[in-house]
Amino acid sequence: MSTPPVGIIMGSQSDWSTMREAATLLDELGIAYETRIVSAHRTPDRLWEYGKTAVDRGLQVIIAGAGGAAHLPGMMASKTRVPVVGVPVQTRALSGVDSLYSILQMPRGFPVATMAIGSAGAANAALMAAGILALKDDAIAARLDAWRDALSASIPEVPTDD
Amino acid sequence: MSTPPVGIIMGSQSDWSTMREAATLLDELGIAYETRIVSAHRTPDRLWEYGKTAVDRGLQVIIAGAGGAAHLPGMMASKTRVPVVGVPVQTRALSGVDSLYSILQMPRGFPVATMAIGSAGAANAALMAAGILALKDDAIAARLDAWRDALSASIPEVPTDD
Amino acid sequence: MSTPPVGIIMGSQSDWSTMREAATLLDELGIAYETRIVSAHRTPDRLWEYGKTAVDRGLQVIIAGAGGAAHLPGMMASKTRVPVVGVPVQTRALSGVDSLYSILQMPRGFPVATMAIGSAGAANAALMAAGILALKDDAIAARLDAWRDALSASIPEVPTDD
Amino acid sequence: MSTPPVGIIMGSQSDWSTMREAATLLDELGIAYETRIVSAHRTPDRLWEYGKTAVDRGLQVIIAGAGGAAHLPGMMASKTRVPVVGVPVQTRALSGVDSLYSILQMPRGFPVATMAIGSAGAANAALMAAGILALKDDAIAARLDAWRDALSASIPEVPTDD
Amino acid sequence: MSTPPVGIIMGSQSDWSTMREAATLLDELGIAYETRIVSAHRTPDRLWEYGKTAVDRGLQVIIAGAGGAAHLPGMMASKTRVPVVGVPVQTRALSGVDSLYSILQMPRGFPVATMAIGSAGAANAALMAAGILALKDDAIAARLDAWRDALSASIPEVPTDD
Amino acid sequence: MSTPPVGIIMGSQSDWSTMREAATLLDELGIAYETRIVSAHRTPDRLWEYGKTAVDRGLQVIIAGAGGAAHLPGMMASKTRVPVVGVPVQTRALSGVDSLYSILQMPRGFPVATMAIGSAGAANAALMAAGILALKDDAIAARLDAWRDALSASIPEVPTDD
Amino acid sequence: MSTPPVGIIMGSQSDWSTMREAATLLDELGIAYETRIVSAHRTPDRLWEYGKTAVDRGLQVIIAGAGGAAHLPGMMASKTRVPVVGVPVQTRALSGVDSLYSILQMPRGFPVATMAIGSAGAANAALMAAGILALKDDAIAARLDAWRDALSASIPEVPTDD
Amino acid sequence: MSTPPVGIIMGSQSDWSTMREAATLLDELGIAYETRIVSAHRTPDRLWEYGKTAVDRGLQVIIAGAGGAAHLPGMMASKTRVPVVGVPVQTRALSGVDSLYSILQMPRGFPVATMAIGSAGAANAALMAAGILALKDDAIAARLDAWRDALSASIPEVPTDD
Repeated sequence: MSTPPVGIIMGSQSDWSTMREAATLLDELGIAYETRIVSAHRTPDRLWEYGKTAVDRGLQVIIAGAGGAAHLPGMMASKTRVPVVGVPVQTRALSGVDSLYSILQMPRGFPVATMAIGSAGAANAALMAAGILALKDDAIAARLDAWRDALSASIPEVPTDD
Repeated sequence: MSTPPVGIIMGSQSDWSTMREAATLLDELGIAYETRIVSAHRTPDRLWEYGKTAVDRGLQVIIAGAGGAAHLPGMMASKTRVPVVGVPVQTRALSGVDSLYSILQMPRGFPVATMAIGSAGAANAALMAAGILALKDDAIAARLDAWRDALSASIPEVPTDD
Repeated sequence: MSTPPVGIIMGSQSDWSTMREAATLLDELGIAYETRIVSAHRTPDRLWEYGKTAVDRGLQVIIAGAGGAAHLPGMMASKTRVPVVGVPVQTRALSGVDSLYSILQMPRGFPVATMAIGSAGAANAALMAAGILALKDDAIAARLDAWRDALSASIPEVPTDD
Repeated sequence: MSTPPVGIIMGSQSDWSTMREAATLLDELGIAYETRIVSAHRTPDRLWEYGKTAVDRGLQVIIAGAGGAAHLPGMMASKTRVPVVGVPVQTRALSGVDSLYSILQMPRGFPVATMAIGSAGAANAALMAAGILALKDDAIAARLDAWRDALSASIPEVPTDD
Repeated sequence: MSTPPVGIIMGSQSDWSTMREAATLLDELGIAYETRIVSAHRTPDRLWEYGKTAVDRGLQVIIAGAGGAAHLPGMMASKTRVPVVGVPVQTRALSGVDSLYSILQMPRGFPVATMAIGSAGAANAALMAAGILALKDDAIAARLDAWRDALSASIPEVPTDD
Repeated sequence: MSTPPVGIIMGSQSDWSTMREAATLLDELGIAYETRIVSAHRTPDRLWEYGKTAVDRGLQVIIAGAGGAAHLPGMMASKTRVPVVGVPVQTRALSGVDSLYSILQMPRGFPVATMAIGSAGAANAALMAAGILALKDDAIAARLDAWRDALSASIPEVPTDD
Repeated sequence: MSTPPVGIIMGSQSDWSTMREAATLLDELGIAYETRIVSAHRTPDRLWEYGKTAVDRGLQVIIAGAGGAAHLPGMMASKTRVPVVGVPVQTRALSGVDSLYSILQMPRGFPVATMAIGSAGAANAALMAAGILALKDDAIAARLDAWRDALSASIPEVPTDD
Repeated sequence: MSTPPVGIIMGSQSDWSTMREAATLLDELGIAYETRIVSAHRTPDRLWEYGKTAVDRGLQVIIAGAGGAAHLPGMMASKTRVPVVGVPVQTRALSGVDSLYSILQMPRGFPVATMAIGSAGAANAALMAAGILALKDDAIAARLDAWRDALSASIPEVPTDD
């Protein structure tokens, strides 16, 4: 089975309720992806392996979601030059600010493309992946343009009471 | 004159001391770029024009730095599907947390690849651009790999007093 | 149909549950208004058009509510000199602090009259609009004075158990 | 001597280094103003008097700057329906977030048009005052338009090293 | 009717659910009190009157609770030298940090004895009042000592499942 | 030697530069005090002793300043019913917010009258002590009234450039 | 009855719902422990006694959980050189950031091994205790290794919808 | 050469100015240590190797300092059961709160004993290591007791002006 262009990885099963948004949006855009649980702390060797083989397997974008001391996106960025898009998962005590700082504040050398906290961020991670893939895939570019046009067209002029 | 693959834009001249880091790193990686001041509030038409022509001009990545109510990266992301990498510039009263939230918390539909606050973020924006370009340019991929290897090799084993 | 003095605009339908407070209060004060959804990111051309025609249409105050990376109020302030009153809508992860910073921290040149986070802020936006209109409309001034007097008179001396 | 349209008030002499920016900008726009130290805590009677006579004296906008537990803008808003524009002065320990919350989070009934923390906020307070006055003074409107145009025209295309 | 030693005042009826804790504790300690709604913004004249007459009426401690831009405790402290104990009421968007900063960060000259956010703070305001009154009332001192001893004695050695 | 009415205690010598403000103000008000270094962590037995003897020694108010995990004010409040006024000392990394939370957020039973962060808070601690002592000492009451009047009288009408 | 190697102490009965996680994990690892309510403020003498006898009783690790102005862990660390592991209990208004700062920001001399806020932190406190005990107890080392291996082995490759 | 009981590791040379405090204190306590730069992102294989061999080499405590997205302490805790003590290094924009959250908020399974931000935390990391080693080394226990006694004895009774 060939490698899809996008890998969606997350630190634990509980992150899936957030990261599912990324999968849904990639489905809408007709972009193939794989999903994996890769815990930086519980399965570090899996992280290593995933990162080390990413280029050779042909992954184009890695979307990584994690919460709390969210080391997965940054550690993955240290293992591969494939662009890593990070999604801070909302947390109970600190609302995801802990996740955000752990993902965002990477030192010089290892960027993570950080998205908004929570499911809007997960959806946007998929759109960022699409924007990157669109640079060399005209069909994806066209579908992304259409998706964006449809979003704009869906906004009513006047708010309505429900 | 042909369009370079990367555009570095910023909200004001004062952001240049931060964004220069992105330029420096692109120079190190041998990636061409243009620099522009595009103020979301003071020159909104310039922003419109830059965004609307980005795809046709052949821009591959837009690096956008801004501080305070930093609307430039997000507004640019609303005008083009070219990937936008956002750099929150540090501010006086709020240390760049205002810049960060204004760039990061984009709604579903318009991702900005947000980097760390300040010059480390600017440098990483260049590296993120390189990682994206490397997906279809083997020479850049090779130079990026070499840059990363050199960074790792430069770390001494033991800290030294100065 | 003539333009009312106040325009209530908001970034999305979901902001209406907050911004409705502004409409309710304008109703109480007998001040006409229009309501529009104007998304800075999804309908930027609508924002442009609304801002560019505001003076000529005769709008006196624009009340703009938005959440997250809330660019609407500030972008509107960059397009027109009509006073813009901004309402930070409360958000899930960051409680509206993201909305607040995105609206408040405008650079020199483009003020947004920022109100409290959430529905108290929306109500106050209407009262701020009334205070501005009262400067040249004695009838509104009288109704605003009466509204304020009634509010003060409604406060009981002693708290009561319910 | 006739009352100018704008009153700039502040909690203490030390706020003047921030609030001077408002005065400077009003000078640039050719708008008359008065400056007063009105401490909510040290001279509450002065605050009372200033607020109670504001309408009759013909004040059109009150710009109020204060720091820390910054009660001046909100207390003034409770004493007069003349629009109050609040400027949070930066503080030592809390960087002006204390000033901001004390000014911004007004309850339903008493809006304060809050500006950015520090001198950018003070300058913008003057511009907000100008925007309000422009609603009934065409000369001010013209000067404000010209000021805004000049600001936009002053932005260079490309950043320069100094 | 003679003035009780303690006045419990609050900015609005909605603060009563928090401030009731202060009343309950004063009841337990056998200390008389009065309760009043005194809104800094909606009934500033009531605030003035309450503050100006506090010494002459014989009030010994004023407990003042308020939320958001919580100006009541500090404004009361500017009107009377009777010790003011401030209780920051928890708020929706900012969890009472806005209330806290508005009460706590008083400038040199006008202290407010700030308590913890919410009902623990309200209870403690009563205990602080008792501690102050105990300095010249041996009966209150004895009851406060007994209350504190009983609290300590009520703590079990080992936690229990319920 | 007889015990003065006020004890100024602090966690370490380095807090003295802040707490000196309290001493200065008590000098201005003609109120006697003692100063002690009482470290909650380094000299817990001294803390115990100080707290246990406070009532019998005749202390009326204890002013306690500390920084970081600032346990001194709260631990003192657990050892004596003498009113404890807490001063959060500003810290390097967290600007005194750590000190503030450690002092303020006391559980039901043990109030600390928390002042503003830093030297304004230290000065206000002295004024709070004076306000408490004034309840039973007419001479202190008179001097405090005079001090407050002088403060108000010292405020100029108009700000001046220096 | 002999002293177990681990003492779990907490500031109040209400902390037990968090600290129970520590007990559960010690049970899983076959490590004996005792549980005590030791309130820094309500039962300071109990704290003193517990700390002073800790070494002689043979305690190896003290796990201390507390919320708000959480003085228990730090005060215990000042009374004994037995390693203290601190657990910040989540609080209502400040989400446990108050607990965290009160526990974490100890001055030079008295370390507290601070864990994450809430029940994950309580579980990790037990694991930290196990890691310390494993240094001289091979059986615990083996059980801890097995527990860690089992945790890693329990992670599925792919997330599943429920 | 035999392995010392304590390893001090840090993410970069620039962390040494903070972490040197740990070394200094271990010197004072007569505890041997090694120092290494182990960057989670730049030298991940070094991190792996260090963690995997820690038990066999006989390391008893690992002190790990890092700043920003500080992944080193947590990643080390995922590779070895040797107790990891984490030191959040202060950062420019976020004062070390980013470092703190990245180190502290570890998920269930992998505790990091987090110390205060900055050099006080580094010193305390050494004392925590000493406390752990003292459990099985009476000489270290004696020296630690003496160090603590000396610290307490060094505190003067009364603050002095310098």
